[in-house]
Amino acid sequence: GKNAMICIREASLGPCFGVKGGAAGGGYAQIVPMESMNLHFTGDIHAIGAAHNLLAAMVDNHIHWGNALGIDPRRVSWPRVVDMNDRALRDMVVSLGGPANGMPRESRYDITVASEVMAILCLATGLDDLQERLAKIIVARTFDGAPVTARDLKADGAMTVLLKDALLPNLVQSLESTPAFVHGGPFANIAHGCNSVMATRAALKLADYVVTEAGFGAELGAEKFFNIKCRKAGLAPSAAVLVATVRALKVNGGAQLNELGEENPQALDAGLANLARHMDNIAKFSVPVVVAINHFAGDREVELARVIEFVEARGQRAIVCRHWAEGGAGALQLAEAVVETLEQETADFSLLYCDDLPLTEKIERVAQDIYGAGEVAFDAAALKRLETWQGEGHGRLPVCIAKTPYSFTANPSERGAPKDFTLPVRDVRLSAGAGFVVALTGDVMTMPGLPRHPAAETIGIDPDGRIKGLF
Amino acid sequence: GKNAMICIREASLGPCFGVKGGAAGGGYAQIVPMESMNLHFTGDIHAIGAAHNLLAAMVDNHIHWGNALGIDPRRVSWPRVVDMNDRALRDMVVSLGGPANGMPRESRYDITVASEVMAILCLATGLDDLQERLAKIIVARTFDGAPVTARDLKADGAMTVLLKDALLPNLVQSLESTPAFVHGGPFANIAHGCNSVMATRAALKLADYVVTEAGFGAELGAEKFFNIKCRKAGLAPSAAVLVATVRALKVNGGAQLNELGEENPQALDAGLANLARHMDNIAKFSVPVVVAINHFAGDREVELARVIEFVEARGQRAIVCRHWAEGGAGALQLAEAVVETLEQETADFSLLYCDDLPLTEKIERVAQDIYGAGEVAFDAAALKRLETWQGEGHGRLPVCIAKTPYSFTANPSERGAPKDFTLPVRDVRLSAGAGFVVALTGDVMTMPGLPRHPAAETIGIDPDGRIKGLF
Amino acid sequence: GKNAMICIREASLGPCFGVKGGAAGGGYAQIVPMESMNLHFTGDIHAIGAAHNLLAAMVDNHIHWGNALGIDPRRVSWPRVVDMNDRALRDMVVSLGGPANGMPRESRYDITVASEVMAILCLATGLDDLQERLAKIIVARTFDGAPVTARDLKADGAMTVLLKDALLPNLVQSLESTPAFVHGGPFANIAHGCNSVMATRAALKLADYVVTEAGFGAELGAEKFFNIKCRKAGLAPSAAVLVATVRALKVNGGAQLNELGEENPQALDAGLANLARHMDNIAKFSVPVVVAINHFAGDREVELARVIEFVEARGQRAIVCRHWAEGGAGALQLAEAVVETLEQETADFSLLYCDDLPLTEKIERVAQDIYGAGEVAFDAAALKRLETWQGEGHGRLPVCIAKTPYSFTANPSERGAPKDFTLPVRDVRLSAGAGFVVALTGDVMTMPGLPRHPAAETIGIDPDGRIKGLF
Amino acid sequence: GKNAMICIREASLGPCFGVKGGAAGGGYAQIVPMESMNLHFTGDIHAIGAAHNLLAAMVDNHIHWGNALGIDPRRVSWPRVVDMNDRALRDMVVSLGGPANGMPRESRYDITVASEVMAILCLATGLDDLQERLAKIIVARTFDGAPVTARDLKADGAMTVLLKDALLPNLVQSLESTPAFVHGGPFANIAHGCNSVMATRAALKLADYVVTEAGFGAELGAEKFFNIKCRKAGLAPSAAVLVATVRALKVNGGAQLNELGEENPQALDAGLANLARHMDNIAKFSVPVVVAINHFAGDREVELARVIEFVEARGQRAIVCRHWAEGGAGALQLAEAVVETLEQETADFSLLYCDDLPLTEKIERVAQDIYGAGEVAFDAAALKRLETWQGEGHGRLPVCIAKTPYSFTANPSERGAPKDFTLPVRDVRLSAGAGFVVALTGDVMTMPGLPRHPAAETIGIDPDGRIKGLF
Repeated sequence: GKNAMICIREASLGPCFGVKGGAAGGGYAQIVPMESMNLHFTGDIHAIGAAHNLLAAMVDNHIHWGNALGIDPRRVSWPRVVDMNDRALRDMVVSLGGPANGMPRESRYDITVASEVMAILCLATGLDDLQERLAKIIVARTFDGAPVTARDLKADGAMTVLLKDALLPNLVQSLESTPAFVHGGPFANIAHGCNSVMATRAALKLADYVVTEAGFGAELGAEKFFNIKCRKAGLAPSAAVLVATVRALKVNGGAQLNELGEENPQALDAGLANLARHMDNIAKFSVPVVVAINHFAGDREVELARVIEFVEARGQRAIVCRHWAEGGAGALQLAEAVVETLEQETADFSLLYCDDLPLTEKIERVAQDIYGAGEVAFDAAALKRLETWQGEGHGRLPVCIAKTPYSFTANPSERGAPKDFTLPVRDVRLSAGAGFVVALTGDVMTMPGLPRHPAAETIGIDPDGRIKGLF
Repeated sequence: GKNAMICIREASLGPCFGVKGGAAGGGYAQIVPMESMNLHFTGDIHAIGAAHNLLAAMVDNHIHWGNALGIDPRRVSWPRVVDMNDRALRDMVVSLGGPANGMPRESRYDITVASEVMAILCLATGLDDLQERLAKIIVARTFDGAPVTARDLKADGAMTVLLKDALLPNLVQSLESTPAFVHGGPFANIAHGCNSVMATRAALKLADYVVTEAGFGAELGAEKFFNIKCRKAGLAPSAAVLVATVRALKVNGGAQLNELGEENPQALDAGLANLARHMDNIAKFSVPVVVAINHFAGDREVELARVIEFVEARGQRAIVCRHWAEGGAGALQLAEAVVETLEQETADFSLLYCDDLPLTEKIERVAQDIYGAGEVAFDAAALKRLETWQGEGHGRLPVCIAKTPYSFTANPSERGAPKDFTLPVRDVRLSAGAGFVVALTGDVMTMPGLPRHPAAETIGIDPDGRIKGLF
Repeated sequence: GKNAMICIREASLGPCFGVKGGAAGGGYAQIVPMESMNLHFTGDIHAIGAAHNLLAAMVDNHIHWGNALGIDPRRVSWPRVVDMNDRALRDMVVSLGGPANGMPRESRYDITVASEVMAILCLATGLDDLQERLAKIIVARTFDGAPVTARDLKADGAMTVLLKDALLPNLVQSLESTPAFVHGGPFANIAHGCNSVMATRAALKLADYVVTEAGFGAELGAEKFFNIKCRKAGLAPSAAVLVATVRALKVNGGAQLNELGEENPQALDAGLANLARHMDNIAKFSVPVVVAINHFAGDREVELARVIEFVEARGQRAIVCRHWAEGGAGALQLAEAVVETLEQETADFSLLYCDDLPLTEKIERVAQDIYGAGEVAFDAAALKRLETWQGEGHGRLPVCIAKTPYSFTANPSERGAPKDFTLPVRDVRLSAGAGFVVALTGDVMTMPGLPRHPAAETIGIDPDGRIKGLF
Repeated sequence: GKNAMICIREASLGPCFGVKGGAAGGGYAQIVPMESMNLHFTGDIHAIGAAHNLLAAMVDNHIHWGNALGIDPRRVSWPRVVDMNDRALRDMVVSLGGPANGMPRESRYDITVASEVMAILCLATGLDDLQERLAKIIVARTFDGAPVTARDLKADGAMTVLLKDALLPNLVQSLESTPAFVHGGPFANIAHGCNSVMATRAALKLADYVVTEAGFGAELGAEKFFNIKCRKAGLAPSAAVLVATVRALKVNGGAQLNELGEENPQALDAGLANLARHMDNIAKFSVPVVVAINHFAGDREVELARVIEFVEARGQRAIVCRHWAEGGAGALQLAEAVVETLEQETADFSLLYCDDLPLTEKIERVAQDIYGAGEVAFDAAALKRLETWQGEGHGRLPVCIAKTPYSFTANPSERGAPKDFTLPVRDVRLSAGAGFVVALTGDVMTMPGLPRHPAAETIGIDPDGRIKGLF
């Protein structure tokens, strides 16, 4: 028979100690060793943090020792990172206490998984490529506005040394012993939200079928997987599995969160427009799609049937999945449907836009073709920066749009499949090392906070020496 | 035959990327794998950093969500830590940017090895003791002046979970395959500068002879090893090896650093008073001593002979060691001398002071009996705090004096064996979890900075994939 | 014969030392003593600064000494002020350096003329009313969200004492000895931009005709004079003089700033729509209007005639004024026209909206009836705050809209008479002491900065002891 | 007959609104108009604040616009000032919020009377001299360590313009119509604590006898009056009145503050050693001295007699004064004694040290000859700075020692007449414009704080329109 392999992302300590719950899956669909995965695991995220913070220390150190490059302290854009939910570090003033402590300036910490180094590690194809990307990171602007890179600071070599083991994919397994690579974990808003290219490529050499994830709603996750990861890594996916739930479709059709247990055929029907939009979007990349209906305990048969009927009426297949409750057996039918699709349909993967398209038009292309927007409203300062980067030679980069996953628009309460709205682009960031331009369409939190009662309060070791409270 | 085992401290990333050079030894006296030891090693220091920073995040989170404990934001004494030399983080203001980001306050980062969590891990005797010590950490004072602990914040359980693997000693070996535990690495000024009790105890079960280190000059390192680590862990050392060099003795006798290559019998003779003081000091703990003269390339035979003669005239032995150049063979004679000493002399280890002595008198005892001070001048605020702690039940803790290792006094330029000077105590800190009171006799840097040209600039991976520049 | 009196605002030191030029008028239309007016004058602005800063010191002092009122340091909205252009003070963190220095928090300085105390002094009708208004100032919110006032801090009495002399109008004269009150000088964006009620009322008792100013374009200045100052002080103006220039009309008709010297009848004709809108606006308050065309050296007769013809075709009079070049004689014709208007037309002054109208609808009323907007888009947080204030009993206050004076819209480059646009309300502020609610439609600078070459560099005393460089 | 004139200092708003009580004298020995003197008076202090803050704004403005002078933002020593007790401003970070707001740096506010501009105004001999001194103010150091002056920033002209009226002495009178100049008010610790040279010189032309004050104990006040003000202004005082009280002498003799009502001849006798030291000190300047015993209600006749006896035994006269209770009549006897002294003794005023003495030796001279110290212990950094200034040409300046007025030593609890102690010099400051070098012997507060219940809470206007609570 043929074999399959899973590729997913690593877990951050921050959420683990914040809102109760680890990130190794749930029910009978879990990766083991769960405890390691949810704690330090193989140390990859700590290594990324160390490499990131070394660069940060070298920026301030350069300014301190005479600032030969003429870095404007107010235009240092490189934050520091820590793998923790710590709102106190979102906005700070550093280098206080006199000349021995450097030049005072405002700065911030991000959570480590939001680091550009994380995005770089996940897109790198090897050690050389890793170092080259690290070298390209822009950390600041000079008083004259010129970019300052990690290469200018001679930080790329040492950063690579710190990351050389983290670059290697981590092999684990499911509860049923299916092998899995768990490697990398970039944010799905300011980065591309996919596991590493190194892991995906290794899996493609080892297995007949490789299944990987793409974070957030498909208009974000699939779009970035296709337009960023596949573009960069030369990958051509054979099929897409679009995950839906009856509950989410009802919400998209107007149901309230506290009414989801009730039957509501009107809301479900209305919500299917959202599913249709996602199916259409994937078709634009010329990739066949199978819909997986993730089964919840309270789902009604008539509701599941309505979704299947809707999808089949559009010429695709929808399969109910019960892997949480049943393990692999619960997803067997889905697997068979995917294999049949692969045998019957030949993907002809194509990107949504070519590298030559100017940055502003790339953003408009995604907004209009994928989100259904009428137009894009760029903030004046953002537009000016896009033009600067276009002129500095970064115009061929793909774009990475940070948007709420709760709506096709930038307004999280606009459900369903809205059309012809205006998408605001409030800010833009250049990830020259990772190789994309981020467009922010709303407030994006790159450092979470702990809740009133963090999970850490109940995590501990029980009298038998076992960890409790971790999930 | 009998076997021996080495117990030393782990290396921090900070100095590794700062001043050129790793911390795994040198020449033929090295621990391997050197590269791992100098980089992330087994992740212990990252784990300590995560546990430390989780507590810090929980402090600010508690204040943010209503501050039920009444913590005074200005009296939060718990810093954050990172394993990096980063002067920009010595003095900062956090929680800026509005009510969503917590309550503004001044704070700082220390380097991870200066964390009280590091000192705790090194003194803990097991998981339960570890958690109990973590729970006792005092992180802040309330508006009423009452101490706030990690236990009050329910952070001790989760911190223990983060440290459960880091608590286990790391077994490595020398180039000649002598087994070695490399575990823990507390600062030798604000902490006790010794490797972990867990490692030392495990080694004592595994080997006939256990050799361990104590950081800084013997008036600091040996004193803290005896009065803090041995007291806490119930250890009774059988002998002490006092390391001397001809060069350092000449400096203590008045020679300038740029003249050390020249013969200078007057300086050497004068400097031997310093060695004599150290020998006398160790005798006060009723432990036999052997002097190891660490050989340098330029040492003259007549100089080495003078030191041996001096030591022998006092009834002890001094052995010239050449392990850097010759590996184990170079230290064989020393090993034999130590074994002979152990067979001929029975140690009757005794502490310098009992737990009942008040804190101020403990400080005076060390200052007078070990350093040779005439009196101790306490800063008024420091004295008041010592009295508060005495009243709060911390009076039975030993004291940990932070002092320059370049002099018996607090003034680094006063060499030799000065007497009857006044030792200033400028500040005091309570490490209630680690279990000691720190007395600061001068400026103590708990966050180093990078030099003008940090080693990181030349560290990298060469075309053959090997790390270069790490030592 | 009858006599007339002028009432205008005081000058701030900030602009005087920033961009070259004092604020005592120009040419033959000047107030004397010019030097005093442009420097400390009678100390009113210093007194306002002292009263303002006393309140600020008392806020932080209250928090420092136990914070019995439960003030949230992050929700202190009362800044400090200084009569200087000083951008370094726009955004700061205060109370650093330990518990003796108060509780750390973010704050800012405004220029003194932007202080709510200035707006209060200009609206107060006497010492009692002054103290009552000062007492109502809201300086912060508690942790529970309740407002904290100057009265809660017992600051109103001492503030009144500091202001008792500043409340008295300052009498000066023009070059031709016409008496003038120069008193008060609130910002025309976050405040109402008119001189004091005390001065205006005193002038009304002393003279037959009182002429006063209203800062910025008439859609801002006249609207605030009518809806805020006249409402509060019970004033009923008899006529309005609308000041126009040929140059400004051309700009509003599309001409570029560097082409204003050229004849451009198309631009002039197009720009007259702007003048017509202003005339219509004033008519909505049932006040007769006379247009004063402020003559510039390069104005062409045909252009002046075109404006007069346009105004007369609408049934009003337009008079060319030459007071800069000719002094009082140059404005004689205007004075006669105004007197004739007063004799022929009876004003029936009415406010644009009543006190009962909710705050949001007041803002909409001004935006639609005066600016010509289609609708108002409230930022969500701003809307919520307006609702809170409405609920707290501030709903009867008039509104003070901060908007660019360069356009009827919030976009300074949209000239002419645009219609049916959306006016954004980004932020709102409550001036409970002054007695109005400020709605901000864009970035508003309440602390100016000095230019690259501040006027201060050339201001000095010449060898004859005369001040040079002041204008 | 002959006439006399008083010259004293102006009052600051800060203390007036802080600890209850104005600064216009008390009882029947008062200056009027008291209310004006305690409030804004003639605006001198506001003008000094404006001039000071203009310079501060110009420093940050220069850095903002390219920093052509290469000012190190961390080495800007020029604070801002406000005439208010406001502890929140003691330690702050300014210029936050992005590049438009300048370069972030730590800074502070002082109370206006602590401004070097105040010291300058009080030492200036005219407008030209004022501007020259302002021009010499050192506001910062460059990255290379070179001083940056107000002249470099072209700020001296505009500062002079702001101060031109404040430079003129203010003439008021006592309750009995004796004319008095009230002008200037520099701090008596970091400045010389005397009223202005302009006022003193004017008084010397107007009156036969001029009486002036010198703040703090005579070892500070008289020493600075002689060595700084008289040196700079070329004044030669004819006699000194040394003010003593029975109560203070008892405190200096060891009595507790709560026992001062009891008879205590031992304490009084012991305390007279303090008075003797002051008398000896004044003799070192070759100026005759008369002792004025300021009478308090509870003083016993036997105590007063003992003081008189002690003074007369030393060949001088002591007179009991009752001006608080009796007005001028109460000080008549003192006046007569002073006049007699002037007629009988000819002063031969001489300075304690010449300009040529190096700065360190000047400090030692005052410490040894006036305070009775054995030696001076300079902090290393302070010593280095003194050497730098000596090298930069500031060596000829006199020294201004900031020391507690409660003791001849730096320890406020060491009463009496201690000898041969060590005086610590912890920090030094260069007032190059005022023309002296400040040596700090302890913590010096240049920005007071308000008390728990500031006087401002009870200051107000009563129903009759009179100010209440001001004294």
